[in-house]
Amino acid sequence: MSEKIRLASIGLGRWAKVLGRSVLRSDEIELVNCFTRSAEKRSAFQAEFGVARSAATLEELLADDEVEGVIITTPNDTHRDIITACLEAGKGVYTEKPISTTLEDAAAITEAVTRTGGVFAVGHSARRLSGSRVMKEWIESGRTGGVSMLEANFSNERGLELTPDTWRWYADKAPGGPFSQLGVHHADNLQYLAGPVKAVTAHTRKVFTKAEVPDTVMAILEFESGALGYLGAGWASPGIYTINVQGTKANLRYDLDFTHWDESHEADEYSSLVSQEFGQIERSPVELPPTDMFREQLEEFGHAIRGEATIEVGAEEAVRALAVVHAGLRSAERDGAKVEIAEVVDAAGAGAAIA
Amino acid sequence: MSEKIRLASIGLGRWAKVLGRSVLRSDEIELVNCFTRSAEKRSAFQAEFGVARSAATLEELLADDEVEGVIITTPNDTHRDIITACLEAGKGVYTEKPISTTLEDAAAITEAVTRTGGVFAVGHSARRLSGSRVMKEWIESGRTGGVSMLEANFSNERGLELTPDTWRWYADKAPGGPFSQLGVHHADNLQYLAGPVKAVTAHTRKVFTKAEVPDTVMAILEFESGALGYLGAGWASPGIYTINVQGTKANLRYDLDFTHWDESHEADEYSSLVSQEFGQIERSPVELPPTDMFREQLEEFGHAIRGEATIEVGAEEAVRALAVVHAGLRSAERDGAKVEIAEVVDAAGAGAAIA
Repeated sequence: MSEKIRLASIGLGRWAKVLGRSVLRSDEIELVNCFTRSAEKRSAFQAEFGVARSAATLEELLADDEVEGVIITTPNDTHRDIITACLEAGKGVYTEKPISTTLEDAAAITEAVTRTGGVFAVGHSARRLSGSRVMKEWIESGRTGGVSMLEANFSNERGLELTPDTWRWYADKAPGGPFSQLGVHHADNLQYLAGPVKAVTAHTRKVFTKAEVPDTVMAILEFESGALGYLGAGWASPGIYTINVQGTKANLRYDLDFTHWDESHEADEYSSLVSQEFGQIERSPVELPPTDMFREQLEEFGHAIRGEATIEVGAEEAVRALAVVHAGLRSAERDGAKVEIAEVVDAAGAGAAIA
Repeated sequence: MSEKIRLASIGLGRWAKVLGRSVLRSDEIELVNCFTRSAEKRSAFQAEFGVARSAATLEELLADDEVEGVIITTPNDTHRDIITACLEAGKGVYTEKPISTTLEDAAAITEAVTRTGGVFAVGHSARRLSGSRVMKEWIESGRTGGVSMLEANFSNERGLELTPDTWRWYADKAPGGPFSQLGVHHADNLQYLAGPVKAVTAHTRKVFTKAEVPDTVMAILEFESGALGYLGAGWASPGIYTINVQGTKANLRYDLDFTHWDESHEADEYSSLVSQEFGQIERSPVELPPTDMFREQLEEFGHAIRGEATIEVGAEEAVRALAVVHAGLRSAERDGAKVEIAEVVDAAGAGAAIA
């Protein structure tokens, strides 16, 4: 038996392959089994990633005693049932973000995590990018001084390409369009940098897309710290991924070319972080030590299963990120009236996750 | 008698000198008279800018038949009385932005402009920066494609330095702090680029300043076009002046080092505009032909007095910019509930200005 930590993939689509490649970059974890309904896709995945066996049903996979943990990349609205089944079978669970589409599902997942005592990780990987890590360091060490404003934008052209045969077209599958699909990343990033959000004010618009969902989202986040945050998410322009931090001693600007996102060991090379210290207009590049967000989060997950690591992004962080999106969507429905995080979390019975 | 258009300065402080230097760069306009209450300051201003004579009172200045137009740089809350007196004396009026502190004053000024039929210009000069001009060109020519999102931030460290003996400390003099003092520039810039704003949702915070006014402002602007805009204005960080435009064909990012703002003929050299076209992540620098915003707006003003030019920024544009600030301040008072521009404009009796 290999000394590597033994994982299995559930849902073998594009994202499973991105994560599969990150597993191949690791000396600490490996894929030993996999499951999706199509036998053809299972064979192809086994061949591409050198996975010893595959399972024809979820039950068969969960009966494999060698599998210590599962990597779930199935559609968001299937997370609840699959995660619950895996936890109840005693497997550690890593799920791709968001934790679920609805906060009700997130509440049920949180309950299952607590009840089973299982290891549970959510793939809000973006906070592991070198730029996020270095910004966090600057804030924690006091180098930025006190932070009053944070701004983040994650946009691409998706809304211009959507057709009714893609799930992102539909409001029940991709609520808020770029808000739930892109903005949720920054909902985690900004809370990672500045602490919990208390309330959200948001507007959404369908400016150019023909889909059910909006293509234009702007939200103001009120942090418990007193700072304000802006979160922009669009589906009607060339790609953008930026985070700006304004502190009393320094500003930071982070900019990522996310066409290199999938190859997370290269993403930092296509990123830039610049600082602007007090009394200066000139900006200085800040060094970004290389990271590999997908590999690192799965290694952490594996070691946590063995009791050798702590999960950084579990149910609490994932619910906080999702709650920002849902508070924002509710605010947009109310024409921009401010919505407290507590309101949407409590209404969904997810209060225990962030208590 | 010189062929140059003859102007006079009223209020001889720091900003009068910035504009005075721009007049010296012009072959078309000149300063022939000046007024402030202090005789010492009048002499110093005459000496520095080669102004032939000065007036000990406003009445004396307005009785000078050679003076065709006045440049007003007195405090914002004195604008209404001085502008009205100058218009009634038959002088063309250029006033520094904002048109006034309150929309009520702006309504009275608009009424005086209509009643006298005088030439009236407001110094929202930032739209004349090369970056703004080129962005406008890209939008108008369709090169950006349809615009769904615009973001602007104007911030500096003012709030960290304020003391009770400065007027900006006080809410009645500088309502909303950086919102009225910095944000009003972008309220004009963004409407110049994307057309009229319909409603504003805003939050303000006192995070670090000890002054009466906030140091942190974030607003979401709803444009009549359907686009959304973000306006950030802070007084608790190193300086920022940025405008981002997201279009279906291209994004634009503008960044100005405003330490060179006062010398407007040099400002473009310390600016950058980059474009990011559809299908590209790489950004390309966009050439910025040199402009000189202060000189150009005063030359336009002078030629308009002679009937040879049209004023670009008059009462309507200035009221629209000020209304965004006041709608935002009212929204912030209501904890972020959205406020229509029409509501604040009508309440102040300023509806005629934007009708």
